[in-house]
Amino acid sequence: MQPADLTLTAAAELIRDRHLSPVELVESVLERIEHVEPRLNAYVTVTADRARRAAREAERAVAAGTPHSPLLGIPVGLKDLIDVAGLATTASSRVRRGHVAGTDSTVAARLTAAGAALVGKTHTHEFAYGLITPQTRNAVDPGRIAGGSSGGSAVAVAAGAATFALGTDTGGSVRVPAALNGVVGLKPTYGLVPRHGVTSLSWSLDHVGVLTRTVRDLAPVLAALTAGAADRAAEADPGGADRPGPEETDLTGLRVGVPGNHYFDHVEPGVEAAVRRAVDRFAALGAHLVEVEIPLARYIKAVQWGLMVPEATAYHEQTLRTAPERYSADVRVLLEAGALLPAADHLRAQRARTLMRRAWGRLFETVDVIAAPTIPLTAVPVGQETVTWADGSVESVSDACVRLSAPANITGLPALSVPVGNAVPAGDSRPGLPVGMQLLGRPFAEPLLLRLGRAYEEVTGASGQPARPDSDAAALL
Amino acid sequence: MQPADLTLTAAAELIRDRHLSPVELVESVLERIEHVEPRLNAYVTVTADRARRAAREAERAVAAGTPHSPLLGIPVGLKDLIDVAGLATTASSRVRRGHVAGTDSTVAARLTAAGAALVGKTHTHEFAYGLITPQTRNAVDPGRIAGGSSGGSAVAVAAGAATFALGTDTGGSVRVPAALNGVVGLKPTYGLVPRHGVTSLSWSLDHVGVLTRTVRDLAPVLAALTAGAADRAAEADPGGADRPGPEETDLTGLRVGVPGNHYFDHVEPGVEAAVRRAVDRFAALGAHLVEVEIPLARYIKAVQWGLMVPEATAYHEQTLRTAPERYSADVRVLLEAGALLPAADHLRAQRARTLMRRAWGRLFETVDVIAAPTIPLTAVPVGQETVTWADGSVESVSDACVRLSAPANITGLPALSVPVGNAVPAGDSRPGLPVGMQLLGRPFAEPLLLRLGRAYEEVTGASGQPARPDSDAAALL
Repeated sequence: MQPADLTLTAAAELIRDRHLSPVELVESVLERIEHVEPRLNAYVTVTADRARRAAREAERAVAAGTPHSPLLGIPVGLKDLIDVAGLATTASSRVRRGHVAGTDSTVAARLTAAGAALVGKTHTHEFAYGLITPQTRNAVDPGRIAGGSSGGSAVAVAAGAATFALGTDTGGSVRVPAALNGVVGLKPTYGLVPRHGVTSLSWSLDHVGVLTRTVRDLAPVLAALTAGAADRAAEADPGGADRPGPEETDLTGLRVGVPGNHYFDHVEPGVEAAVRRAVDRFAALGAHLVEVEIPLARYIKAVQWGLMVPEATAYHEQTLRTAPERYSADVRVLLEAGALLPAADHLRAQRARTLMRRAWGRLFETVDVIAAPTIPLTAVPVGQETVTWADGSVESVSDACVRLSAPANITGLPALSVPVGNAVPAGDSRPGLPVGMQLLGRPFAEPLLLRLGRAYEEVTGASGQPARPDSDAAALL
Repeated sequence: MQPADLTLTAAAELIRDRHLSPVELVESVLERIEHVEPRLNAYVTVTADRARRAAREAERAVAAGTPHSPLLGIPVGLKDLIDVAGLATTASSRVRRGHVAGTDSTVAARLTAAGAALVGKTHTHEFAYGLITPQTRNAVDPGRIAGGSSGGSAVAVAAGAATFALGTDTGGSVRVPAALNGVVGLKPTYGLVPRHGVTSLSWSLDHVGVLTRTVRDLAPVLAALTAGAADRAAEADPGGADRPGPEETDLTGLRVGVPGNHYFDHVEPGVEAAVRRAVDRFAALGAHLVEVEIPLARYIKAVQWGLMVPEATAYHEQTLRTAPERYSADVRVLLEAGALLPAADHLRAQRARTLMRRAWGRLFETVDVIAAPTIPLTAVPVGQETVTWADGSVESVSDACVRLSAPANITGLPALSVPVGNAVPAGDSRPGLPVGMQLLGRPFAEPLLLRLGRAYEEVTGASGQPARPDSDAAALL
């Protein structure tokens, strides 16, 4: 096992106790990047010099005994929508040719202040407007999609090419690639993590999120990103039952909602089975399972697109007029179509969002958390554009990816994707592919979601080991 | 002088002191309605039986010595967008054929609880979507427009056919007809007066407002409509200088902003002169006049229409599909065109509104109130659709009406229109036509606006006498 394989928590403890040098950790991750990048292409830019400089500074800080930050010397990848002063924010697009960010985004500045070592900027589906990340390959099976739009970040974390990473999530873009690559992804409550200096896709749905290899790894990152606001928000929350206690795996009294509609419709049988097994773990730990009905489910897709499409087009209006040829064909057609959407449709989406937020608020009066699949499928082969369900209906891969993620974007509720084992896609004899379970909570209920995720990890003995790009699946290519 | 000619304040005092019976007052107003309606057509429905019943109840309450409400037995007209249980809310439209309201709107219920006597439902430009009120004629000169959309309410109050009235104001619809008919019109702060049970034109711009013959008459109506919330909001306002004191006409220390742009551009010379004379009165009372620049003025029209048009279309979507032929041609074309407005334009309007609200907020750090014309013209002859300004530019009457009113709808700030004498339109030898001065304030600064309006009335000796439909101007027809 190399330092690059360490979870954030393990690496931080070793650094704190001077059993591991930050320089050694960063070098190990840079080596891993060199090793896996030709196959995975998770990075737009690798910032080896910056990473080494940060590692040496971290080493000096440890030696000097300055107050310890859990992110000190930890290698991080940032989705290339997130400004870092002096670097281009390419958004994986030719539109941003020649771009250089003048100042750090708030999240980049906070991670730097916490001592994290930036190893590079990761690929996104161009301007985050897609769920594939065509530049990047799945960390478990490079013949399959990485998922998106934060595909580079998820793949980097999954492959040990970053110890953690940031992404953005407008319709599932952190959770979808997390699920498809077998890592943890958190989309926090809307507004909790500052978006200043982060390129927008759709401002009323955008969130900055976090990708790690274990749920335990999330807490120090979230604390650094929110400058403690997450904890304060959680403390202000009257639901005292949400507090993590010393007995984290005792879930007695916790009400876990299991959707009777929407979330288990048109889901691969292997995905459903893995998620239901995980939910049963919660029951075994004392949680009370409650079947819930997802409100206004048939409007989810229309609301998500009705909000996202015009906002995205508004953001790109100028460039669409001056340099439309610089966009990829798939993104350009979406942006141009957005200019044709009638205001009446957008208004309907805005009004429906209000109703959905209220209805989900009422839903969370009856349960503390909802457990469901993150996405209905495992990673499809590169180039596959649709899925055919058991009843013969056909769905685009994009729609399938968004369907279960969008409610948390529309409502702004926090949502965590946790790996819950593998599933073998129907008609496929390959080794299993990662499955994600999604946990949704009330606004600012991140501590409860993290507690549940940690409980699951603890009882299942999840190791947070990186995917092996040299494993059998990859070798089959 | 007949009881119908009394101001609300005068009538309420006489009733309280048992010098006037509510029955006598209501009969006088019903008589006046009969007399003027053939010429003015302010009412959709006259509710004589209800009014007489309310008057008798009020008479009994006075006799019984129950705690006195200043609206007890006071005749009121309600714009026919405001639900009253058991009556049709026609919105002056064939679309509402056969309609009967099941319950009272909140404002109707509050006025009833305060003892007001409903004399009828007044005409609106169909569904409030226009600034003319074609059914109704100007109270001062029936050959001229009433203004709209609350034309019926303004004309009724101006003619003594109601002692006060309610209207709605989405782009000036209370203030415009108030100015054109020589009465007082208040558009309160957005959200202060409940809109439950009031037909919507554009929900993010709609306000219920009040029409009276003097500013002094407004306070008891506003108190009843807000159930005291206006006073509480004003008390919570840190601007202590806003409190009405015993010396109402001493305006020492008050900063009155006078716009250097927008509000005096393309304004009839007689209107400008009348408003500037009124502003000089404030200076004579000790106020400090400050020239201010209206921010983002060139976006006002686009923002107003960009918000209103799609919201109006969204509200009428169903009926537009099932019974388009029931709308008047002018309203139908606006509603149908609204379906074609791109979401991008609507979004731009929403974003610009946010910027305008902030900029006006900063403006009100430098002044306490802004004084300006309510509308740039006096009532034009019926059928005249455009105005030609001194520089040769041509403007539609609708645009001219909305131009100076819209900022208060976009920002939600309170705005009061006060009659400030007459002006003779250019090239016209008729007797002068009414001019309105508009006073705008910070959110919930209604008490300050009312104080200024009362000070103006006091020093000018405004009587609040109804317009004489039998006057020379009317006789010229």
